[in-house]
Amino acid sequence: MKNQLYFQLKNNHRQEKAFEAIEKEQHHIGYYALPDQDISPILEYCNTISNSIETIAVIGIGGSSLGAKAIYEFIKPTQKNLKKLYFFESTDPINITTLLSKIDLQKTHFLVISKSGTTVETFAIYKYIYSLQNNPKHYTFITDPNSPLEKYAHEIHASVLHLPPNVGGRFSVLSSVGLVPLALSGIDIQMLLNGAKMIKTSFFKEGYIKDILLKKAVFYAKNHAQYHINCIFAYSETLKFFCEWYVQLWGESLGKKQRHSAFNVGLTPIGLIGPKDQHSFLQLIMDGTRDKSVTFIQIDDFQDSITIPDIDLPHLSSLNVLNHLPFSELINMQCNSVLEALKDQKDIPLDSITIPRVDEYNIGSLIFYYELLTSLVGELIDVNAYDQPGVEAGKIILKKKLENS
Amino acid sequence: MKNQLYFQLKNNHRQEKAFEAIEKEQHHIGYYALPDQDISPILEYCNTISNSIETIAVIGIGGSSLGAKAIYEFIKPTQKNLKKLYFFESTDPINITTLLSKIDLQKTHFLVISKSGTTVETFAIYKYIYSLQNNPKHYTFITDPNSPLEKYAHEIHASVLHLPPNVGGRFSVLSSVGLVPLALSGIDIQMLLNGAKMIKTSFFKEGYIKDILLKKAVFYAKNHAQYHINCIFAYSETLKFFCEWYVQLWGESLGKKQRHSAFNVGLTPIGLIGPKDQHSFLQLIMDGTRDKSVTFIQIDDFQDSITIPDIDLPHLSSLNVLNHLPFSELINMQCNSVLEALKDQKDIPLDSITIPRVDEYNIGSLIFYYELLTSLVGELIDVNAYDQPGVEAGKIILKKKLENS
Repeated sequence: MKNQLYFQLKNNHRQEKAFEAIEKEQHHIGYYALPDQDISPILEYCNTISNSIETIAVIGIGGSSLGAKAIYEFIKPTQKNLKKLYFFESTDPINITTLLSKIDLQKTHFLVISKSGTTVETFAIYKYIYSLQNNPKHYTFITDPNSPLEKYAHEIHASVLHLPPNVGGRFSVLSSVGLVPLALSGIDIQMLLNGAKMIKTSFFKEGYIKDILLKKAVFYAKNHAQYHINCIFAYSETLKFFCEWYVQLWGESLGKKQRHSAFNVGLTPIGLIGPKDQHSFLQLIMDGTRDKSVTFIQIDDFQDSITIPDIDLPHLSSLNVLNHLPFSELINMQCNSVLEALKDQKDIPLDSITIPRVDEYNIGSLIFYYELLTSLVGELIDVNAYDQPGVEAGKIILKKKLENS
Repeated sequence: MKNQLYFQLKNNHRQEKAFEAIEKEQHHIGYYALPDQDISPILEYCNTISNSIETIAVIGIGGSSLGAKAIYEFIKPTQKNLKKLYFFESTDPINITTLLSKIDLQKTHFLVISKSGTTVETFAIYKYIYSLQNNPKHYTFITDPNSPLEKYAHEIHASVLHLPPNVGGRFSVLSSVGLVPLALSGIDIQMLLNGAKMIKTSFFKEGYIKDILLKKAVFYAKNHAQYHINCIFAYSETLKFFCEWYVQLWGESLGKKQRHSAFNVGLTPIGLIGPKDQHSFLQLIMDGTRDKSVTFIQIDDFQDSITIPDIDLPHLSSLNVLNHLPFSELINMQCNSVLEALKDQKDIPLDSITIPRVDEYNIGSLIFYYELLTSLVGELIDVNAYDQPGVEAGKIILKKKLENS
């Protein structure tokens, strides 16, 4: 991974303070340890799943689905032999019916994922699917130790896997929550962790990433009152769900009351895909209010890229400049053109990340990079990046409505 | 459509001024006339397409694809007999290869849509596909009259359809740009226009919608410096691409230098899908900076909704409140719970739109509602809602790079 920053910053004191806080925090926040875990228990579990299973389906929402989906949808277009992986993550009846029409219940293994073990959406969907397929062999439950869900699973003699301690939902993709569905679908989870480990090592062992992440985090934190919308502009359709994962990670971690002031603060995440969103959101970045930072993400080598053929279209010869160009070069040229155009504005904070190619290692590195960045910014803007107290009020109201219905 | 506003507003003077401006503008901005158009030429054209065509593919980007995609993806899950409609809207080589692997070139009709007739992405993709399928009978071109693309199409004896005059890309979904692919896939485009016409009539003929839209537009404009992020929170997966269409419409229309001051202003659109994004973005709305308005969209009647079965799960009997509940009721209960929780905060501007069901009429009404709202807000914050000067700089840089490559 290369990461070039296009903004200026002086302030080493805050950088060092943030680093120290994270060094301390890693001893009680669970996600930092995930890149170093031993995956053999997960692989052994995967071997217990019958060969007749052709499809994996996750029943889970938010942190229980977004991470695995980001990685699966990134890898899928380049690896033809993966098992199908579906995500039941909505109570929309049209969505549930549509997904069920795509799968064969006899050939599907369901992963019911709920950290607390009481997520309303997950159980509404599970109950419905269980009424169609009540063989416990077709289910694995992933939950916190001793949750009601674990007890239930033991009762019906279904498999249970645990989340590691102190890993919050949105930081859980590199735990069993993400690794189990990904491994079952055929993704190389060790390579995923290796990519994350590279970032972790470079950060904690004084490498290139430490300097970059600290500079970036301090810049975002210092300027959060002005540049409070942080766009990722990713130049590949494969990163569409990575952007959705980023939106949860960033928004839910950093939209908080401050610890010491109780002021409402927050950094708003936006996920954009290029070149498509050049024809949508770019105008707003270019001419709108100066409240947005932009991080471009590009893929250096789209392997086996197709090439624009040498065709001269009558009346359209101005487009002959495209001829002979590999699409991979065109899309990166488009990215660099927009980057340069925004640089010329001089008051839009920009940086650009390049990953070498579409594989497990590189998405693992991107994920851990963004998790570290989120933790750093959370520390610097004085919020607890690991809770989500704001979503409780709606849950309580829903509970009352359900009891009265 | 029902629309309930939960914010207060006094200011009739600005409302009337905005209405007058739109009444005047409708004589030279083309999109206002689209609901009243005669669709028989489009239907006649559709009859010329061979019965052997099983798949429709749009080659187009931004305004040339987002609208048709929003409508198609909304309707598709509830109408099983539609023809497949694909969108080639990226220069990502992985995306192009993946889409091509799904279609049979001999059974696909391609709609090449480019208003200017020179969009780089569209021609890069077209040249590639043309090298695989060079029979002009498999192509229809949709473009402005006399564009280079029209001349080219005549040269190869392919069909050409025109965009009506003065209709910008992001306001073009109810013109040939959207209607042709939708009609070819089997969607009832007259019902689509009828829905739009209902909103148009209610707005211009002093109906319910006039009052609502003017209040809402004046509120957004008056408070644009504080509440400059406008979220749609739609409670159905079917509205996912409607949200993407909204993001383009809102962001590209309202992110501008002001006409009279040249200040950079802009309203930032965010599209959210419930209940999924309760587990992602909601925390930021609830506890983050008070810079966001939220419009909930719900569907009153998900026809043929499935019901949560009456299953008592051991150790999970607290979830028995879900039993017997139709999913359609659950999802709307979730929506209303979050709405109430946000209302309790008192400083987040909210409104809620309910459409009766998933059909052409209702998506047509939503689309025209948002187009009118965009025009009104554009007028009120003193920007030209119909141009996009900010995207030119990147195009010029790309052109130079292409010439030097």
